[in-house]
Amino acid sequence: MPESIPENSVGIVKPQCLRFDEPLELRSGKQIDSYELMIETYGELNAARSNAVLICHALSGDHHAAGYHSEDDSKPGWWDTCIGPGKPIDTNHFFVVSLNNLGGCAGSTGPSSINPATGKFYGPDFPVVTVRDWVKSQARLADRLGIAQWAAVIGGSLGGMQVMRWAISYPQRLRHAVIIAAAPKLSAQNIAFNEVARQSITADPNFHDGRYLEFGTYPKKGVMLARMVGHITYLSDSAMRDKFGKEAETPNSANISGNFGRDLRTGQLSFGLNVDFQVESYLHYQGERFSERFDANTYLLMTKALDYFDPTVDYEGSLSKAFEKSDCRFLLMSFSSDWRFPPERSREIVNALLDAGKQVSYLEIEADQGHDAFLLPVPRYMDALHTYLQRVSDEVNA
Amino acid sequence: MPESIPENSVGIVKPQCLRFDEPLELRSGKQIDSYELMIETYGELNAARSNAVLICHALSGDHHAAGYHSEDDSKPGWWDTCIGPGKPIDTNHFFVVSLNNLGGCAGSTGPSSINPATGKFYGPDFPVVTVRDWVKSQARLADRLGIAQWAAVIGGSLGGMQVMRWAISYPQRLRHAVIIAAAPKLSAQNIAFNEVARQSITADPNFHDGRYLEFGTYPKKGVMLARMVGHITYLSDSAMRDKFGKEAETPNSANISGNFGRDLRTGQLSFGLNVDFQVESYLHYQGERFSERFDANTYLLMTKALDYFDPTVDYEGSLSKAFEKSDCRFLLMSFSSDWRFPPERSREIVNALLDAGKQVSYLEIEADQGHDAFLLPVPRYMDALHTYLQRVSDEVNA
Repeated sequence: MPESIPENSVGIVKPQCLRFDEPLELRSGKQIDSYELMIETYGELNAARSNAVLICHALSGDHHAAGYHSEDDSKPGWWDTCIGPGKPIDTNHFFVVSLNNLGGCAGSTGPSSINPATGKFYGPDFPVVTVRDWVKSQARLADRLGIAQWAAVIGGSLGGMQVMRWAISYPQRLRHAVIIAAAPKLSAQNIAFNEVARQSITADPNFHDGRYLEFGTYPKKGVMLARMVGHITYLSDSAMRDKFGKEAETPNSANISGNFGRDLRTGQLSFGLNVDFQVESYLHYQGERFSERFDANTYLLMTKALDYFDPTVDYEGSLSKAFEKSDCRFLLMSFSSDWRFPPERSREIVNALLDAGKQVSYLEIEADQGHDAFLLPVPRYMDALHTYLQRVSDEVNA
Repeated sequence: MPESIPENSVGIVKPQCLRFDEPLELRSGKQIDSYELMIETYGELNAARSNAVLICHALSGDHHAAGYHSEDDSKPGWWDTCIGPGKPIDTNHFFVVSLNNLGGCAGSTGPSSINPATGKFYGPDFPVVTVRDWVKSQARLADRLGIAQWAAVIGGSLGGMQVMRWAISYPQRLRHAVIIAAAPKLSAQNIAFNEVARQSITADPNFHDGRYLEFGTYPKKGVMLARMVGHITYLSDSAMRDKFGKEAETPNSANISGNFGRDLRTGQLSFGLNVDFQVESYLHYQGERFSERFDANTYLLMTKALDYFDPTVDYEGSLSKAFEKSDCRFLLMSFSSDWRFPPERSREIVNALLDAGKQVSYLEIEADQGHDAFLLPVPRYMDALHTYLQRVSDEVNA
């Protein structure tokens, strides 16, 4: 818990659950007859209903992007660095909408919801959802909220892919597309890491073909492993080194020649199969914590949504053709040490947009934190986003 | 099986098993009372016993580095591209010795051997072995073979670390150290990937705390996962793309908008949790094949040997001090797309050697294949190694 809630926080926020009864046709050909979306909003919608900003979350995000759920809350929402009064996504000027995507596990309808058709958990019967399906459900959310056009749709990583899809599928419904640390589609290596994560989960004996909730169990170890793999790809090598200092790689080397078999706290090698290095215990901790809050089936769905993302599919493989009808202005940002979706991948998007004659700003930010940088208060990143969105605010609040 | 054994092959080779009854004190303080080492040799030792070359294997290698075990053998040894008559490690000029390291699973004493003290499999009781321990056992092997000084000790990756240890621990016993695609020690990221691999294995319900052989079972899925993670780090992103062509990432996109739910062969997305992309089935295949031949406990030991490698430990953290007494000449090679042990890491070794006033040649090879390149017939690499070793041959066979 923070001593007191900081002044530049959106403060205590309350999620809302919106129910949608119109069936949603999915990319796979399947449909969801009805569903609920958990959302949060921050700031006020102006009279012209023109200052709304949509936040699209990445693999493990949800609707709780900013603020606190109670005075006792130990941590704010996942993008609290960016969203709040006076922050880059300034809630003094914008009405910010954040949701948990379909298939998620933070309250929106997903695999851990009850399937009304069977009265049991959806589990593995929850249909595979794609970025396109999410954006379709987000457009319905905009309708519900009476937002004809977003001032901006903003997202990092998988969130950035949703922003691209908005610009392609609903060209009239956003003024600005802010695409951060994204890629036009996954590389073979990206898919490979996702597949390892999925295999880790499905190999867990507690997975029970995805019906673990019916068995009253949970593939905790598998989710933990999946997250450990993921986590490595979110950090740069040097970010890892910085995070743990020298200890990441060498436990107190002054003592190494001495006694063995001691535990981590003494800084000595175990010469067993124990955890010897701080990077190992850090990963364990991250994996454990994640496995306590995240649904295994949702993790599988999210990675598949990443793998399937390819906006060029209906455009003869051409990304610039895909963007042809887009009518918004684009801001793209990437981070120098991001090896998951490196700057080259953002430049592919930028080049496609330029080829399509679109207005695009691009900033490659020197940052040591790897892919994770998009969630962190990197000063140049914060400044650039702030400046860009101030101009957007001037446009829509004029 | 090759149609016929190629002319530049060492041909049919026969492993030998050498028994050592003098106890080996290990770095951990434990000891192994007696042990066996499987070796192969290629070429002839000259009268002066000066033309012997030691090959040190990497994580998953063994003594079978070149040639075939029978006419029916489908594949030659793991470094057959490099070792043979007329090849870079030319068996017309060198007596090549290759061994399976202690703790291995290809015939040398290791976790799947019987522990004479108990009459049962060693399993998890096999002590952790380090690079230093291996080199000590290799020095005894040299004694046994009557080799006072190696013309060269050669190794890639973890093999290169053994070469470094030779140059530090036995400065008089090698003329040349050939260190390929190595690192002075692991990075935090390297250790993190190893830990994920270990966790994959130990989380498998068939692991039984390492006593799976006593249970008549095997943690196949865990080893498969570990290998999949490893394999991703051995290949560059572009190597993966090249390996599968466009198919790596997109199954026959012309059909994507059509029917769904078909299998991989039809090139269409399943919109399920099945394997959709060729990179996934490739990794499965690699993982499966590996899990059929490799012992899980050995995998754990090998990754720990990597993690623990730090030649600076007795030298106040200084690599140049570690090399101070080394008396050999050094050849280092690295590969441009290797992101496991990238060229920077080799340059760290080169710089330490230069600081210590040693003779060192260094070549950074443009190659697209990632870390795996050290096992592949990359022409510039083969040429450079050949040229260097021809000079070595001239020295020792004069």
